[in-house]
Amino acid sequence: MKLLEDRIKRDGKVLEGNVLKVDNFLNHQVDPDLMFEMGEEFARLFRGEGITKILTVESSGIAPAILTGLQLHVPVVFARKHKSLTLVNDMYTSTVYSYTKKVSNEIAISKKFLADTDKVLIIDDFLANGQAVAGLIDICEQAGAVIDGVGIAIEKTFQRGHELIAEKQIRLESLAKITAFKDGKVVFESDQEANNAD
Amino acid sequence: MKLLEDRIKRDGKVLEGNVLKVDNFLNHQVDPDLMFEMGEEFARLFRGEGITKILTVESSGIAPAILTGLQLHVPVVFARKHKSLTLVNDMYTSTVYSYTKKVSNEIAISKKFLADTDKVLIIDDFLANGQAVAGLIDICEQAGAVIDGVGIAIEKTFQRGHELIAEKQIRLESLAKITAFKDGKVVFESDQEANNAD
Repeated sequence: MKLLEDRIKRDGKVLEGNVLKVDNFLNHQVDPDLMFEMGEEFARLFRGEGITKILTVESSGIAPAILTGLQLHVPVVFARKHKSLTLVNDMYTSTVYSYTKKVSNEIAISKKFLADTDKVLIIDDFLANGQAVAGLIDICEQAGAVIDGVGIAIEKTFQRGHELIAEKQIRLESLAKITAFKDGKVVFESDQEANNAD
Repeated sequence: MKLLEDRIKRDGKVLEGNVLKVDNFLNHQVDPDLMFEMGEEFARLFRGEGITKILTVESSGIAPAILTGLQLHVPVVFARKHKSLTLVNDMYTSTVYSYTKKVSNEIAISKKFLADTDKVLIIDDFLANGQAVAGLIDICEQAGAVIDGVGIAIEKTFQRGHELIAEKQIRLESLAKITAFKDGKVVFESDQEANNAD
């Protein structure tokens, strides 16, 4: 999605260790108009699949998930993160390790909001090691829900997450695919395709 | 806002201790179409005020804030909650006590995203004791930003939050105003107005 790639080029910052910071339009300050365009794109990709529910994880996944739900007219459920959980009889839970923060969290979704009759679209802001998405997939499997696909705003294609979803034979659609970092700049898959076409 | 009041009547659950649970359309499972209507209503109320930024707190405030930002075409900044914070030179922070969870959290907004030139609309899902909103007001005061108003989805008018915002002489607009609980049901201000008109 060119609009998102251009925005990453313009406003994203590549920090030491090849960490991409997009907190001025995606995960702290959020641009609602960009989210709307992203929601339209996800909806275009997954419309007609009979999606009944969108799943995401708080907090940065919520904006793109809601704008996608707005287009598809389906409810969005966001998993809550907890340091630890007790009394979880009425919740589906999964453990998610964050490589960035080096902590494990439990994510949880109330059993009321996910059923074996659901066809789920998972939406998240980032795909790197894929731990958050793996947690949501685990929760869908516990509920017996069908996962129709995963929609990601920004994917780092060279990290473990991509493979993890491919192994499960789940459809993955990412709006911006980062294949490498070069001289403190982001290289997109689309840049390489453009170069190859030269 | 009749649409929201009707939804609370239909899907809200009043638990022991007069706790209203709206986790099936507002703060765990979210109805994007309802959020859109709420965003339109907030935008109608605050359009023309020269709002430059919407502030909210993760996670339940994000959906209504984004849909309001979409109408007003201004960025949304969501404060992040932390158990404790160190190294906060680049952040505005405030301590927020949750009466529901009986814990204190630090909320934080990066200094990059709030300036003394900003005119702010604060949006949140609930107003009861008003601690989250008070934290956001505190952060705006630290930044020297002007607070144009506070927009709340569901307000319990009889708790401390309402008064707290009135004392600051800040405009408060709530889409559904709960004035009491009676026999395990919600009583709205609009119900009483209707009764008085009989």
